[in-house]
Formats: sequence, structure tokens, C-alpha cells
Amino acid sequence: MNTEKLELLYEGKAKRIYKTNEPNILLVSYKDSATAFNGVKKEEITGKGRLNNEISTLIFEKLTANNIENHFVKRLSETEQLVKSVTIIPLEVVVRNVVAGSLSKRIGIEEGTEIKNPLVEFYYKDDELGDPLLTEDHIALLEVATPEQVATLKTLARKVNDVLKAHFQACDVRLIDFKLEFGITEDGNIILADEVSPDTCRLWDINTNEKFDKDVFRRDIGSLTDAYEVILTRLGGQSTCTK
Amino acid sequence: MNTEKLELLYEGKAKRIYKTNEPNILLVSYKDSATAFNGVKKEEITGKGRLNNEISTLIFEKLTANNIENHFVKRLSETEQLVKSVTIIPLEVVVRNVVAGSLSKRIGIEEGTEIKNPLVEFYYKDDELGDPLLTEDHIALLEVATPEQVATLKTLARKVNDVLKAHFQACDVRLIDFKLEFGITEDGNIILADEVSPDTCRLWDINTNEKFDKDVFRRDIGSLTDAYEVILTRLGGQSTCTK
Repeated sequence: MNTEKLELLYEGKAKRIYKTNEPNILLVSYKDSATAFNGVKKEEITGKGRLNNEISTLIFEKLTANNIENHFVKRLSETEQLVKSVTIIPLEVVVRNVVAGSLSKRIGIEEGTEIKNPLVEFYYKDDELGDPLLTEDHIALLEVATPEQVATLKTLARKVNDVLKAHFQACDVRLIDFKLEFGITEDGNIILADEVSPDTCRLWDINTNEKFDKDVFRRDIGSLTDAYEVILTRLGGQSTCTK
Repeated sequence: MNTEKLELLYEGKAKRIYKTNEPNILLVSYKDSATAFNGVKKEEITGKGRLNNEISTLIFEKLTANNIENHFVKRLSETEQLVKSVTIIPLEVVVRNVVAGSLSKRIGIEEGTEIKNPLVEFYYKDDELGDPLLTEDHIALLEVATPEQVATLKTLARKVNDVLKAHFQACDVRLIDFKLEFGITEDGNIILADEVSPDTCRLWDINTNEKFDKDVFRRDIGSLTDAYEVILTRLGGQSTCTK
């Protein structure tokens, strides 16, 4: 059966989500838009959608191969992939191996400082509130997840980190930090959803600490697509990395 | 032996701390300054120092009577009290019974909403960083307290809440939220320090929700000293409340 793209369900900053003719299967189309600072900075960057779709595909395949359940079904075209329909938990789950970005500003520790025990943070997915940091007590008060679900999210996030940190390291890339989103399937399981790409990860060269992620756009320090091409290539997209 | 006030050790926004001729005993002098928004709003308010010294004295005495160890030694004059010298842990420990102030803005829940299980939050005492909210993982990373100390702080903060909530309720006052600071004594115990006053608590009338705390100053909704006089009177300072 050929999957047909039906009506647009949701348009986000970097992706469009469409219904399909298959039950519980959605189509994700990656856009060429780059945004930062809660949408304040915005640009169209040709080729970004393709790069994130390809990179996200490779990463989801890697996670699946390591028994980490996720919503990815298959790559459909240069900019599109099919995913399982889930109910997104409105939390951004951030894992940090090295201090960078907002954490550095928040607690006054220099960017680049190694974190011994990877740190898991939760942010409330709410653009109007500016995606605020939440403690576990806040999550309970907001009733966006039960304490058991929060524990599951932490365990899953740490597993994803173990797999991706080792994988990127084998490709000469340091996984500094990343943001995950999780969803609940029809049968009540929590699985990884959304995307994993240089839009949602900080990725630095293992030797030079050159940045190959959205900070290139946020901080105006070069060509975003050149940076993302490096990641795609190192992950084996047009392969120099053998792992 | 008469306690002598010696050199100024530290001047904060609302208090001055002096050395004394007694070992491990400091003198706290409450100032008439009111500040808010990390010092951006500032005013001299005659009588505020006396009110906070008297109220803080009554509250520390109440906590001592309920076996909650604290740094208070005795009231010395209208605006001064003696306290034990401790090493302050650089965390503001906030307990919330009702959503108000920054929490309402952060998570988008209406001010006045009851919280079933009192919520304990930690903020990093750092004016330059704007006293940011910290998770327990951040505290571990910053090494400002061990996980065991954090657990102790939470237990102590909840105990203080149990005592003060009941005490204020008996005086027709709702204890909405409050900020505590703790210190470590020479022999390694964690005890309550700093002050507990309408500068550091949100206190609303039990029937009308009229505000008798620093929000009167922050939000320009009346006379700060009139509000604090109500609290002092209800706590038995010039006593109408019998408890």
C-alpha cells in the first residue's frame, strides 16, 4: 500500500505534520526554516529540511537498533518521514554532558565544563511562558506527567544519551547536550518522538570544539548547512565514518 | 556580660550584621530599607526595621518552642537581635502552599490556587545571576550542598511550614509562601538562619485575602508599615491574637 499524504494536522517552527491514509501513522515534513530564541530570530535556509530529515532518520535507526523504542517508521523522501502517532507529553527533556547555552547563563558555570553525571532537565513546552525550567514538583503540580512517568522519562533520556554519546564519539563528534520529546502510544507506552538533529543537539568537533549545530545560526558563526552536512557525512550519510 | 557591637561584617539589602565581643554570636540590625526585583526598586520606610525585628523575634521564638533549631539568640533592642554565627548555605529555600508571584508567572497557574502538597523550591543565592531556580541536579553540579543536605533542607523547610502555617492560621492569616535560608554551625548542624518576616513571607488575610507582606511595596498597593503592623499585632506583638 502506498502511503498518501492527507490534511495538515499541525505546523511547527521546523516541521509540518500531516495525516495519512494509514491508521496511527503520520507524515513529518521537515521545513527549511531556522528559528531561535522562541521564534524571535528566523530565516529560510535552503537544504536544512533535507539535512534534518536525513540526520534524524539515521539517528532514529541507530536508536531502534539499540532497542530504544521511538516513533520513527521510515524515511519517505528527501524531506519526509513516516512516524507513529502518539500523544506528546508537553515536556522538553534536556540531557547535558557538558555545560553550554542556557545552563551556563543560568548557573554561572563556564561553557565547555564537563558534567560528571549527565544532567536531565525538564522544560515546560509552552511558547507563551517561554518554555520555563520545571522541577519535578512543578510537573506534579501541573499534572503534565505522573512521578512514575517522570522517572521513566529520565531513564529513557539517559539510555538515549548512552547510545548517542558513544555513536557520535565514534564519528569524532562530542555530544554536548540535546532536547528530546516523548509521546504516549495508544497502548500507553512512552516512546521517543519528535526529532533528533543538529536543531535539537549541541554537537562539537571532538578535537577542535567547532560547532556543527543550531548555535551556528543562533550565534551567526558560519553556514548552518555546511555544519549540518558535516554531521550527516560523519554519521555515514555520504559516509566517511565507518561506524 | 553585656554584649558589645563591634565592627560591621556585612551589609545586605535589609540588614546589617556586626561582630560582637561574644564568640560565635553576631548582632543583626534590621534596616528601614525596602527593596524588590533584585534591588531595582528601592525605598526608605521609617519603622520597617523595627517591625521586621519584632516579627522575626516572635517567629523565631515560636519555632524554638516547637523544637526547630534556629540561629536566634535574643532580641536586643527595637531593631536589633543577637544570633548564632553560621556559614550560610547559598540557597534560598522557598515553600509554597498557594500559587503566587514568580511561580504563577513561571508555570501559568493563577495566583491564589491552592497547592495540595506544599512545594519546596531552591534558588541560587546569587544577585548577579538573578537568584535562578535550581533543580537538585544543578545543586549537585554547583556543589553548594550535598544530596543529603538537600534532603535535610527539604525536611526542615516542611517542618517550619507545618508550625508557621498553623500558627498564622490561628491568627487569621494565610501563609501563602515563604523563603528560608539555612546555615551550618561550627559542629556541622544545619539550622534555620536569616529572617522570617513579611519581607520573606506572603501573608494574606484569612477572610479577605488582603496582602500584609512585601507585595504591598512591590505592587504599590498601600502602606507597607500598616500591613506589617497588622501582622505584628495578630502575632501578639501588641496583642489581639491569644495563641
